[in-house]
Amino acid sequence: MAQFINARENLVTEAIDGLLRGSGGRLARLDGYPHIKVVMRTDWDRSKVALVSGGGSGHEPSHAGFVGRGMLTAAVCGEVFASPSVEAVLAGILAVTGDAGCLLIVKNYTGDRLNFGLAAERARALGHKVSMVVVDDDVALPDLPQPRGVAGTLFVHKIAGALAEAGADLNAVTRAARSVIADVASIGMSLDTCTVPGSPKEDRIMAGNAELGLGIHGEPGVEQVTFEGARSAMHMVVERLAPGLGSGPHVALLNNLGSATPLEMSVLTEELCRSPIGDRIAWMVGPAPLMTSLDMHGFSLSLLPVDEETRLPALQLSVVPEAWPGCHGVAAPAVRPMPDGMIPDVAAPSEDPEMRTLLTVCCDVLKSSEADLNALDAKSGDGDTGSTVATAADALMAASDRLPLADRAALCRALAHELSQAMGGSSGVLLAIFFAAAGDAFAAGAGGVAALKAGLERIQQVGGAAPGHRTMIDALHPALEALSGGVAAAAAAARVGADATATITRARAGRAAYVSADNLSGQVDPGAEAVARVFERLASG
Amino acid sequence: MAQFINARENLVTEAIDGLLRGSGGRLARLDGYPHIKVVMRTDWDRSKVALVSGGGSGHEPSHAGFVGRGMLTAAVCGEVFASPSVEAVLAGILAVTGDAGCLLIVKNYTGDRLNFGLAAERARALGHKVSMVVVDDDVALPDLPQPRGVAGTLFVHKIAGALAEAGADLNAVTRAARSVIADVASIGMSLDTCTVPGSPKEDRIMAGNAELGLGIHGEPGVEQVTFEGARSAMHMVVERLAPGLGSGPHVALLNNLGSATPLEMSVLTEELCRSPIGDRIAWMVGPAPLMTSLDMHGFSLSLLPVDEETRLPALQLSVVPEAWPGCHGVAAPAVRPMPDGMIPDVAAPSEDPEMRTLLTVCCDVLKSSEADLNALDAKSGDGDTGSTVATAADALMAASDRLPLADRAALCRALAHELSQAMGGSSGVLLAIFFAAAGDAFAAGAGGVAALKAGLERIQQVGGAAPGHRTMIDALHPALEALSGGVAAAAAAARVGADATATITRARAGRAAYVSADNLSGQVDPGAEAVARVFERLASG
Repeated sequence: MAQFINARENLVTEAIDGLLRGSGGRLARLDGYPHIKVVMRTDWDRSKVALVSGGGSGHEPSHAGFVGRGMLTAAVCGEVFASPSVEAVLAGILAVTGDAGCLLIVKNYTGDRLNFGLAAERARALGHKVSMVVVDDDVALPDLPQPRGVAGTLFVHKIAGALAEAGADLNAVTRAARSVIADVASIGMSLDTCTVPGSPKEDRIMAGNAELGLGIHGEPGVEQVTFEGARSAMHMVVERLAPGLGSGPHVALLNNLGSATPLEMSVLTEELCRSPIGDRIAWMVGPAPLMTSLDMHGFSLSLLPVDEETRLPALQLSVVPEAWPGCHGVAAPAVRPMPDGMIPDVAAPSEDPEMRTLLTVCCDVLKSSEADLNALDAKSGDGDTGSTVATAADALMAASDRLPLADRAALCRALAHELSQAMGGSSGVLLAIFFAAAGDAFAAGAGGVAALKAGLERIQQVGGAAPGHRTMIDALHPALEALSGGVAAAAAAARVGADATATITRARAGRAAYVSADNLSGQVDPGAEAVARVFERLASG
Repeated sequence: MAQFINARENLVTEAIDGLLRGSGGRLARLDGYPHIKVVMRTDWDRSKVALVSGGGSGHEPSHAGFVGRGMLTAAVCGEVFASPSVEAVLAGILAVTGDAGCLLIVKNYTGDRLNFGLAAERARALGHKVSMVVVDDDVALPDLPQPRGVAGTLFVHKIAGALAEAGADLNAVTRAARSVIADVASIGMSLDTCTVPGSPKEDRIMAGNAELGLGIHGEPGVEQVTFEGARSAMHMVVERLAPGLGSGPHVALLNNLGSATPLEMSVLTEELCRSPIGDRIAWMVGPAPLMTSLDMHGFSLSLLPVDEETRLPALQLSVVPEAWPGCHGVAAPAVRPMPDGMIPDVAAPSEDPEMRTLLTVCCDVLKSSEADLNALDAKSGDGDTGSTVATAADALMAASDRLPLADRAALCRALAHELSQAMGGSSGVLLAIFFAAAGDAFAAGAGGVAALKAGLERIQQVGGAAPGHRTMIDALHPALEALSGGVAAAAAAARVGADATATITRARAGRAAYVSADNLSGQVDPGAEAVARVFERLASG
């Protein structure tokens, strides 16, 4: 069991209690554990139409996370992916329904339909006004006998919730919900299945593939498609939804099915806005986890035509449940001009074939070392040293024609400037400081070795690292000490220094300082390795 | 590449543009792509102290998601897990800093410290008031030379943000931030590493283990520990934090590192509140993704002592960024009594050894079939038929002493009641309907076969399924048709009907209706299989 749960049997009840504890007293549950798991508002006086939804658990924040003023009155929670019992639904209805009646919002799954439907009949038999709507927004297969209810359900919760909060009667709330259901369409895509607690994960989706038109219970998608990145993924989804688009502007609900990262969800947002239907999307809900499928690595897109008179204000009404991410207007990214004061004085370009060769050779060795340095860094840091250095080398080569190659002081300052622009990570700024200080020293009349030593001294001051701390200084320091004896001597010294870092099992600077001796032992520091390779290449001509 | 991105090179810029598009015009960026990625408020007039934070990307919603009134003024975003350049930080400072000055909130990583530190110096050289605080809340290793900054940074954003919004001057804001940093402590635990875009995932954590004291950049944790569930996980985390607890009540920030499900996070909330320090936690922030590490399956806990005069109102001030989940009082779950009207009339228990044996045999065969039925259901549904049926069988056995075993009509009604209480899923309610209708028929004087057929007829009406739709009816219908010829005939007919479902590649009811013919072909329907097994067992004596 590689999940933060205790036992499958009380997973849902423990999770509900955890939700209640952190709700600031907003939420209560019925005293019906373990079979009856109903979450309800504590500030509810039965004076308005009650909204009750629910279904199997595993879709959080749906539905208990949407209980609160402006959305649901109560949520009836089943076990993971299993419909709650009739008794549980009945308890939920009876706990919150007053004279204004109750609307049941049900996703179209057989179990939910049966259980909510039978509970509605029992409640009606006790004299309550109960209506029920069934959400079937999934368009994965146009000819499905029973289209599933998925994330479009949130539009029903929100719009019906706003009307109920405003005091509309049961007929009006039900009519608005049915109208949303008639107009909303959704489809999902995933790169991996979900992990059902207590069951082994099914490895159904082949590497390089994605599932299109999948459900929210781990059931297989309608088809496996070749996955070629965010743009084509969003295009495939949009292609399925475009034919059914209503007229006028739409709101898009972009739902994280579980473990897509916020970065991925934002890229998908960008691709949606750039897609062929981008100009039809006037408002967005999310991206956010709204109707998840446990930890599924996927997303779904739901579209609803919106009029500014009724649906838009209902969607934009502020509500208490924090899981609702708001409904915002979509606009092209606002871009502000760069501030003044950024641009330092730049020396005029000049040519020096020898210096150009030197620069090219250094950049070449760094670029060709990308994979090796990344691999070393993966053992002691975050695996990006090679990429960082290679990116910087590319940038320097691209900038070479505007560099003052014939003036060492100006060149060093220009390199500092270029590196501070193009190179991320600590190595970028340390190298910028190195070259800035070396440039100062050249300008003050120092020779080559002395100038480079001045740069080294400065990065030791600012970065706080010294020889023996397991950094690039372990190669750079001995190399510069030996450099007056020639490049070959410097290269040999750098290599000895770099190799010695493999025996330093307690780093004192950089991310490697957080890595255990076991992980560091036998691994050369990637920064020191980069320095040694540059000197070795220079020594070899 | 199994992530919803396009190319690693423009992942962060595309994600920022996506964030901006959905922000409703609240956020802008500087015109410095690709190297300079600064997100800033559009409603900022430089009249108050500016708060600038940032660092490598991959921690969303940190930091760009916290830009907005009441929290950050600008966020400077690096590439994934790489510090932004000095130029980028300088641009961020210059874009938002007015006469009131600017506070830089920096997590303690060498790169961030260097880049923000140098940018601060360049901004000061241009005449700006800039102060900088470094967050080092990670207590993974008590003797680390440079403790990392992790999710406790959010407390600094929030409290400094509230003070700045209220018009406090730079010294007061900086002092409050330093005081929070001195008091906050955090530690994380994870079950899996994160997936860095463009790099293969490292399988570092052995099955059955968790990493304790890990960072937010994929670097290894301080130690691997045996993972024994949510309770022991939370206890280990609490054990590390307890010795450093301040006096008085605390606020706990429970951070989802990426792909822990909301269910898991709620169970962890419950375990935190039940832990030895539970009574010290008076308020909570989250659980929510606040400072993530891409898709890491883990959490972190940050604790801060809170006084009701300054820190609490600052934490509770409502803010514009929706990623901030609020700060709520913690209380025991509120439990409401079950509503009236739930309890139907119950017949008095009675004994009938033959009926008890029959019931026991049926329950036994269902319990022993749990794994087989789950496996069948995994091919066509959500893999839980066996567990659902076994749970119901357990419940019936537990209830057997209160059942009216000697009265068939009352027994059927009681079984309907018990099943509607204890059995989730569509099969639960269908069986309840089956027994309720059979009980009605018995009460009206029908014989056994006729009563059971009445039950079958009712579930066909309510559920909408008929023979050939690939449900349990495909075994139950032929079995009842054959039952007047004896149990052996019924068992044989049930088996033929069940086996025939493997050739029905288009289900018309239940979740299998969403599964493709390829996936269904050759697989027996789990409900039909269960029915066949019960009849076969009865036939075998």
